[in-house]
Amino acid sequence: MKNYCFGIDVGGTTVKCGVFKIDGTLVDKWEITTNVENNGEHILPDVAEAVLGKISDMGIDKDDVAGIGIGVPGPVKEDGSLVAAVNLHWGYHNIVKEMEELTGIPTKAGNDANVAALGEMWKGGGAGYQNVLMVTLGTGVGGGIVMNGKIVTGSHGAAAEIGHAHVDDSITDPCNCGNCGCLEQVASATGIVRLAKEELAKTNLTTVLNQQDLSAKTVFDAYKEEDAVAKVIVDRFARYLGNALAVFTAVVDPEIIVIGGGVSKAGQVLVDAVQTYYRKNAFHTCKNIPIALAELGNDAGICGAAKMVLE
Amino acid sequence: MKNYCFGIDVGGTTVKCGVFKIDGTLVDKWEITTNVENNGEHILPDVAEAVLGKISDMGIDKDDVAGIGIGVPGPVKEDGSLVAAVNLHWGYHNIVKEMEELTGIPTKAGNDANVAALGEMWKGGGAGYQNVLMVTLGTGVGGGIVMNGKIVTGSHGAAAEIGHAHVDDSITDPCNCGNCGCLEQVASATGIVRLAKEELAKTNLTTVLNQQDLSAKTVFDAYKEEDAVAKVIVDRFARYLGNALAVFTAVVDPEIIVIGGGVSKAGQVLVDAVQTYYRKNAFHTCKNIPIALAELGNDAGICGAAKMVLE
Repeated sequence: MKNYCFGIDVGGTTVKCGVFKIDGTLVDKWEITTNVENNGEHILPDVAEAVLGKISDMGIDKDDVAGIGIGVPGPVKEDGSLVAAVNLHWGYHNIVKEMEELTGIPTKAGNDANVAALGEMWKGGGAGYQNVLMVTLGTGVGGGIVMNGKIVTGSHGAAAEIGHAHVDDSITDPCNCGNCGCLEQVASATGIVRLAKEELAKTNLTTVLNQQDLSAKTVFDAYKEEDAVAKVIVDRFARYLGNALAVFTAVVDPEIIVIGGGVSKAGQVLVDAVQTYYRKNAFHTCKNIPIALAELGNDAGICGAAKMVLE
Repeated sequence: MKNYCFGIDVGGTTVKCGVFKIDGTLVDKWEITTNVENNGEHILPDVAEAVLGKISDMGIDKDDVAGIGIGVPGPVKEDGSLVAAVNLHWGYHNIVKEMEELTGIPTKAGNDANVAALGEMWKGGGAGYQNVLMVTLGTGVGGGIVMNGKIVTGSHGAAAEIGHAHVDDSITDPCNCGNCGCLEQVASATGIVRLAKEELAKTNLTTVLNQQDLSAKTVFDAYKEEDAVAKVIVDRFARYLGNALAVFTAVVDPEIIVIGGGVSKAGQVLVDAVQTYYRKNAFHTCKNIPIALAELGNDAGICGAAKMVLE
């Protein structure tokens, strides 16, 4: 009888681990440090040790475990192979094969943003739906697409790489991906700071914002106080993101859009601003697709990873 | 034993019909007139009559027929229901249920552009692949997405409505869909004429083009002769379409892009022009996705419709 499963979310500094009952209850969660030394060669063995240690601590049998789900920060193909996780200095790995060899437990792997989307569909902002487009506004912009309850990986593990959707021909400095004019450059936390710097450099309006203390949070805080410059900045951000979401829904036509990541802590005002442009430019049958805030925060990854196993 | 299947492609003026062996061989094809009178109430009965008549003519048994696939010009949900086919003045129909009642033969239905994509995957420009993004450049711009060999319909039957992806905030006159700035307004046959008119109105360059005799064909013919104004027009078209395709592939990450429709008769020069912008702005793992020309022409619809049955 399989009573438990593990959900693992490999990040750049920590690996988040969760153990769930197969009914979906989170039993325990904890973190270990991500050891990126020697091109990340310790990462999977460390995760395996954490999982096997927890199984031992819980006094359960390996046969009690339905599987391990693991999300990693890079493109993952349907066969469970990671193309490359640049931030971890990881090259090609077959995550599934290696974890199964290390633990003897069936494993599924996915891209972290895709896995987070599955988590939000399961227990968060997308609960009750089977077709979810999630956009994560953090340091970068990530994305995840779930169709009929399953993660869409794409042919090269690059589906939902919507942070690198090209949205502006006039941007000439490069994104981390090497291209110029990506959504990430204007809609991430750093992208919002970019827009703010540009606006502050040219505005004559009075504002509480200043070049030294800019962040997505200070901009949205000022926006909530009806600061004139913050309004212009948020409007530009909302136009970029709302228009981009309108394009994405014309491609995959989800039931719901979920917005997560640190920037989304701005709350409903962010959704409202984005929705204005979304509704203006979305295809008519998609205009009323709801836009919701993510609800799971840092747990989205472990939840989605566990859900991969439970599917 | 099921030896045959039917592929039906309902268009605005004619319904294209094909009968195939289940190994995929096209046995016969013909057309009937699309009777749009009384909100299209005759369309499905006419198709049923055509199918049953052909079965009778061929001297085969209804039990010999694996099924009927039918493509219609409107959003079709996974349950086979048509939301509305505006051009046929059709409102809601459950195509599958109605055709099965009329013929007693199992039926599958799909959106015509999606079905054409499946056809091109099966026997045309996308042959050998299972993940295809097709864009059809005709009077409008249609799209179809096939993932793992199956049509992606979306939650409202609107997946791959990429002609209505928003690509330009500066366009203020409405698209047929009611929005402003859709890809269809700049990349369809009529969209290319729009770009040409704009360019002719402001250029000082010598050109063979003139306001009275503009079409996608005259523009591409002039482009092939290195006409200076045609170069500017095609470059604008290619930038819009190439950039948009780069966004679409960041969403669904296909193995191949197939370009069809009347405009694609311009041939490889069109692909080359579009590919320049595509490669510039596509996400790095998607830059080398091949862009191919469609090969089936008007048969894409009947082929894809038949393929729905054979899946």
